[in-house]
Amino acid sequence: MQRPIRFSHCDPAGIVYFPVYFDMFNGAVEDWFTQGLDIDYATMILQRRLGLPIVHAECDFVIPSRMGDTLTLGVLLERLGRSSLQLRINGEHEGQVRLSGSLTVVTTSLDDFAAVPIPDDIREAMKRYQAGCES
Amino acid sequence: MQRPIRFSHCDPAGIVYFPVYFDMFNGAVEDWFTQGLDIDYATMILQRRLGLPIVHAECDFVIPSRMGDTLTLGVLLERLGRSSLQLRINGEHEGQVRLSGSLTVVTTSLDDFAAVPIPDDIREAMKRYQAGCES
Amino acid sequence: MQRPIRFSHCDPAGIVYFPVYFDMFNGAVEDWFTQGLDIDYATMILQRRLGLPIVHAECDFVIPSRMGDTLTLGVLLERLGRSSLQLRINGEHEGQVRLSGSLTVVTTSLDDFAAVPIPDDIREAMKRYQAGCES
Amino acid sequence: MQRPIRFSHCDPAGIVYFPVYFDMFNGAVEDWFTQGLDIDYATMILQRRLGLPIVHAECDFVIPSRMGDTLTLGVLLERLGRSSLQLRINGEHEGQVRLSGSLTVVTTSLDDFAAVPIPDDIREAMKRYQAGCES
Repeated sequence: MQRPIRFSHCDPAGIVYFPVYFDMFNGAVEDWFTQGLDIDYATMILQRRLGLPIVHAECDFVIPSRMGDTLTLGVLLERLGRSSLQLRINGEHEGQVRLSGSLTVVTTSLDDFAAVPIPDDIREAMKRYQAGCES
Repeated sequence: MQRPIRFSHCDPAGIVYFPVYFDMFNGAVEDWFTQGLDIDYATMILQRRLGLPIVHAECDFVIPSRMGDTLTLGVLLERLGRSSLQLRINGEHEGQVRLSGSLTVVTTSLDDFAAVPIPDDIREAMKRYQAGCES
Repeated sequence: MQRPIRFSHCDPAGIVYFPVYFDMFNGAVEDWFTQGLDIDYATMILQRRLGLPIVHAECDFVIPSRMGDTLTLGVLLERLGRSSLQLRINGEHEGQVRLSGSLTVVTTSLDDFAAVPIPDDIREAMKRYQAGCES
Repeated sequence: MQRPIRFSHCDPAGIVYFPVYFDMFNGAVEDWFTQGLDIDYATMILQRRLGLPIVHAECDFVIPSRMGDTLTLGVLLERLGRSSLQLRINGEHEGQVRLSGSLTVVTTSLDDFAAVPIPDDIREAMKRYQAGCES
C-alpha cells in the first residue's frame, strides 16, 4: 500500500506528526481487510456490526518522513488468537524501514462492545493471508 | 490536565478513535512543559529551535471513552537520559484508568535534526518535577 | 471560549492548517450548546438522537495564527429558522480578528437523517442567548 | 482524483465529519499541482519557498457520504489573479454531486509571508489547465 506524505501530515518541524502514522495504520488495516483478505471492511462494520477496537498500539519511529515522500506500508499477521489478533505494520521508503508498529485488535460486537470469536470466514481468510506471506 | 471528549474525537462506533489519544498525548507534553516545567513550549520550539521528536510511542487502551466524558491526563517522567526522556501518560475518568501510554522523546536540534543533550535549565526543571511527583 | 494554538494545529509553514479551524468551530458549537444554551450536547446527540449536520461552512482567514497564540472564539446566532440555524464564529487574538466563519446547521433526526423542527426547549434557549447577545 | 471514505473520516453519526472534506480539498490541491499542472508541490513549498495559504474557504455539503463510498474530486480553476487564485472543488459519487466547495489561495513567500505574483511557469501551467478544461 502506497501512501503519499502530504503537507497536512507534517508539523512545524517539517516532518510527519507521529499520530498521523497511527491513522495511516488504521487505513492500512481497512485496506488489508478489503484488498488483502477480500472481506469488505465497511460491510463488516456497518452490516455485520463487527468492530475492531485497538487495545494496544505501539510504534518505533526510526527515520522521519517529509512531504513529497511516499511510504510503502506492509501488514504482517503476527498472532491470530480466538478473538484477537496482532498485526505488524512496517513503513518503508526506497527500501529503507522508516517505522515499524504493532496493533493488537479485539474482534468486538458493536451492539454490546463484548469481545466475540473471530468469525470463521474471516479466520480462514487470515490464515490464507498468513500462509501466503510465509511462502 | 482535563480533556473533554468531543464529537470529533469519536468514530462511527461512538468511541474515541485511538490515534486521537496520541494527539492528546502530544498536547499533554506541551502543557507539561509550559505549566509543569514552566518552560514555554512554543518558545522552545520556535526560538531555541529545540525539537522533541517521538522515537517510540505505545499505549494500552483499557476502557473506551465516549463523547461527553472528561479525561484527566497525568504525566510521569519515567526516565531522564542524556538526550532522551521517557514519559508515561495516564488517562483517567472518575478514578478509573482508561488508558496508559508511553512516549520516548529525543531532544533534537531543529536545524540539523541531530540529537542534542537536554539543556541544563530543562534538565533541572525535569528533576524538580520528578522530585515533586515522588514526594 | 479560549483555544490554545498547539504544535499539532500547525503545518510545515508554521501556521494553523485551515481545516483545523473548522474542527475548532465544531468544538465551539459543542461548547455553545453545553455552556451557552445549557443543553448538554452529548445527551442531545446520543440520547435525543438529534444531529446537527453542517450543510454550509465558510470562513475568511484574515491573519494566520501560530503555535503559542491563544484564540478567543465567539459564537453569534445569525439566523434561527424552523429546522436550521446559522452561526457566525469569530476568532480573535488580543482584540484582533484573525478569522471569521459561518456554519449553517440543520437539525436532523439521527434515526432517518431527515430534517426535524428545532425542538421547543432548544429554540427557547437559542432565543434567550440571542437576546442576551443583543442587549 | 479518487478518495475512499474511511472509518476515520466518519463521526459518531456515521457520516464524514465536515472538516475532513477541507483536508481532502488541500490534498486535492496538492495532487492538482503535481499531476494536473506538472509542478511538484513539495518542491514548490520546500525549495522554492512558495506557500499557498487559504484566505477563504467554503463548501456546500449536499449529500452526506459514508464509510465505503468513494468520492471523485474534481478541480476547476475559477479565477486566476495576479497573486491569488480561486479553485472550485466538487466531490461526486456515482455521478451525483455530494459537495461543492471553493478555496481562495494567495501565493505567498514562505520567508516573509508577503503575497507574491504567481510565478510565470506556474501561471502558464494554470492557463494550459484552464484551456484544457474548457475545451
